Amino acid sequence: MNISKEENFSEWYNEIIKEADLCDLRYGIKGFVVIRPWAVKTINLMFSFYERMLEEYGHKPAIFPSLIPEHYLTKESEHVEGFVPECFWVTEAGQHQLKERYALRPTSETAIYSMYNLWIKGKKDLPLKIYQRAQVWRYETKATKPFIRTREFYWLEAHNCFASKEEAERQVLEDMEITQKVVGDIFGIPFIFFKRPQWDKFAGAVNTYTADTLMPDGRALQLPSTHLLGQNFSRAFDVKFMDEDGKERFVWQTCYGPGISRIYAALIAVHGDNKGLILPFSLAPLQVVIVPIFKEESKEAVLRRCDEVAERLKGWRVCVDKSERTPGYKFNYWELKGVPLRIEIGPRDVAANSFVLVRRDSGEKSSHSLESLEEVVRREGEALDQRLKKRAQEWFASRLFSATSLDQLRFDGFVKVPFCSDTLEGKECAEFLKEKYHLHVRGTVLKDKKPDGTCIVCGKSAGVYVYLSRQY
Amino acid sequence: MNISKEENFSEWYNEIIKEADLCDLRYGIKGFVVIRPWAVKTINLMFSFYERMLEEYGHKPAIFPSLIPEHYLTKESEHVEGFVPECFWVTEAGQHQLKERYALRPTSETAIYSMYNLWIKGKKDLPLKIYQRAQVWRYETKATKPFIRTREFYWLEAHNCFASKEEAERQVLEDMEITQKVVGDIFGIPFIFFKRPQWDKFAGAVNTYTADTLMPDGRALQLPSTHLLGQNFSRAFDVKFMDEDGKERFVWQTCYGPGISRIYAALIAVHGDNKGLILPFSLAPLQVVIVPIFKEESKEAVLRRCDEVAERLKGWRVCVDKSERTPGYKFNYWELKGVPLRIEIGPRDVAANSFVLVRRDSGEKSSHSLESLEEVVRREGEALDQRLKKRAQEWFASRLFSATSLDQLRFDGFVKVPFCSDTLEGKECAEFLKEKYHLHVRGTVLKDKKPDGTCIVCGKSAGVYVYLSRQY
Repeated sequence: MNISKEENFSEWYNEIIKEADLCDLRYGIKGFVVIRPWAVKTINLMFSFYERMLEEYGHKPAIFPSLIPEHYLTKESEHVEGFVPECFWVTEAGQHQLKERYALRPTSETAIYSMYNLWIKGKKDLPLKIYQRAQVWRYETKATKPFIRTREFYWLEAHNCFASKEEAERQVLEDMEITQKVVGDIFGIPFIFFKRPQWDKFAGAVNTYTADTLMPDGRALQLPSTHLLGQNFSRAFDVKFMDEDGKERFVWQTCYGPGISRIYAALIAVHGDNKGLILPFSLAPLQVVIVPIFKEESKEAVLRRCDEVAERLKGWRVCVDKSERTPGYKFNYWELKGVPLRIEIGPRDVAANSFVLVRRDSGEKSSHSLESLEEVVRREGEALDQRLKKRAQEWFASRLFSATSLDQLRFDGFVKVPFCSDTLEGKECAEFLKEKYHLHVRGTVLKDKKPDGTCIVCGKSAGVYVYLSRQY
Repeated sequence: MNISKEENFSEWYNEIIKEADLCDLRYGIKGFVVIRPWAVKTINLMFSFYERMLEEYGHKPAIFPSLIPEHYLTKESEHVEGFVPECFWVTEAGQHQLKERYALRPTSETAIYSMYNLWIKGKKDLPLKIYQRAQVWRYETKATKPFIRTREFYWLEAHNCFASKEEAERQVLEDMEITQKVVGDIFGIPFIFFKRPQWDKFAGAVNTYTADTLMPDGRALQLPSTHLLGQNFSRAFDVKFMDEDGKERFVWQTCYGPGISRIYAALIAVHGDNKGLILPFSLAPLQVVIVPIFKEESKEAVLRRCDEVAERLKGWRVCVDKSERTPGYKFNYWELKGVPLRIEIGPRDVAANSFVLVRRDSGEKSSHSLESLEEVVRREGEALDQRLKKRAQEWFASRLFSATSLDQLRFDGFVKVPFCSDTLEGKECAEFLKEKYHLHVRGTVLKDKKPDGTCIVCGKSAGVYVYLSRQY
């Protein structure tokens, strides 16, 4: 690689995508990419962890059509304004011109809520918590970048209905909890959960909350977002339930959308180093690679021992690299690919019933007795995940700043500033920051108190703390 | 249900789709359906079994775009003729008219082989075995029926390249082996692998082989198909490798496409009975349902015991039905849903440290000591899968007939007949059978010998045995 991740992140990222065979950008439609096996395997594991967690929290999987009739999409007025400009449209089928255009789903509220209208009758049908694993399509006008922003991407979307506003609000907190458990704890990616300002919320939502991480260049990347939809969509789609008092009421809704392909981008960026990927043990397509080191006379014994070791580790994702390459080439190759643990076995190890273990995160090399094989792999795998997480958190913490005047602003992380307001009143100040500094108001943090000072832009009494950053 | 599966299959099928909440047909686009959680869970398990098997056989997962530029699709002349009439077309994005139409993939040969053209250079890149999990769209003109034929459906598609014709031919046999292991052995669905006649092969293929099962009304349903593509596509997409003699050669290709949503239709139809679904233990969203049976005074002790039993069975998919319904209602409900094993626990069972087990396939009821709980569940779960499979095979075998004259033809299964030819020469005889009897020539079976007699239609010397049936 030979490119510094922190000094030249964009080039480092493009290079790793190519060198580690993660993605091919040469497909014949702009913004559409081919995801290659090494990336797909990790992405599939990420989906599994996420789906398991959603199910633990009471969500059930469904599959909704990927095409949305135009008249569904235009039912909620803010939603149509936000998404219609981004839609790909199917207008022909076979030799026919269709009577109505169908959008490739840019998101599925309108497809799903047209069914909720039919499914929800009484209070016994609530809460309704459904998710789907799907791709969505958006005709992005911003520059695309593999996994970060493409015109077709892969996500989970959960769509929930409740009898009361309070339950819906609790669901938003629960979505934050799920995000913490999966993205924070399992994937080891640090983030802050922001409540987006009113001028930057999801089209049709009452409030939008998003987990934002930082890329190595200090720019924010939006990860899962959860939206409090209130009754905006249930009114538009007439999703009502008969309450216990015999009255019909509109349901309260939330939706939650972790973009798995984008979280994969964060995984690459946050954990990788100048040698290549570093994959958490829990997400690596290959968790342990065994590299035999031999001369001709020791070949048979070394390979036999490697096979025995692989056999003992078969509960993990493991392989012996028996290719014709040199050990040095193999070390570099699997380091580029981010394999968490490498086991080296040479003739001396065979004789001593030992093996050498090398950790991808630290490069630490240690020798162990063969007896402790499974225990060492388990322990070092877990330790690697913990260390990746800790390292990412420490770096993230070092990029949190605060400022009370414009000359204290920074561009390499999140800057917490006193600000007039996160309602539409504050929009003008936000636009000033965006135009002058390319800094975006990411939003407020629930636990923050009201500031004492004045808005960093307009000097009026500050109503909230907001966080600023450059962004993807 | 109260509808006989064998006497009135179509009505039985529609009813079970609705009653067991598998699918909702009320979505706003004709031929597009919503798949509900109970079906999605089994479909996801089916995908997992299949993907694991494909990986065991050396396939790697990738993700290709769902949109195909028209100029990719039209490169192979037979392929374009076969598929273009079935395509949905994207012609607009945002406010723009696109310069070129994009097809929603009806199948992915042209998307994938445009990349293989870039990926394959030398012999070391072969064999290349890649699969993807994806949905495809076809603007079907035939009547749609949930899971059996919809305009958006869910499948796996594997696309393989080899240096020689022989390896490609071996892959076809390997695909048959995979089909047998997954569809035959794990899902318990019987089928015959036919080589389709030349007039009925995949558009662009040299030969098409398909696993056909029978629905309870004796009509054939095509399950996975595997296609020997020869060099038709590699020539069209210029997919070449440098051979060891320094010459460039076109690769030999195969592709394989198990339609998982359709195999789910077969699973419902083949195993179900007049009470509802019967799901194999390995594929049931819920493998064991525990129904507490109590009067007020025994409630606490019975529920506690049910929870203990559920806790011990937590390695399986298990739940205690604590709803307010009567036990009788619960029995019917979970039978309709096809849950393989039911455990009943009443006060006498609590006292005797026993439980009652009821098998969904046979209705057999047996009492066991609590000590043997895990062993009984494991044994009976496996036994149920074996019995479902055996029962399906026996029924299937009873629907295999043969005929040597037109008056012996049957319409309730496969009829083996001597036939002039499965090349284009035989097409006229096939059309006669289709028009006069609605019988389709499904194809030939590899192991069959050349017949002695004469073609059942034209009376010329018979070149092959073919199998006839009505079809979906």
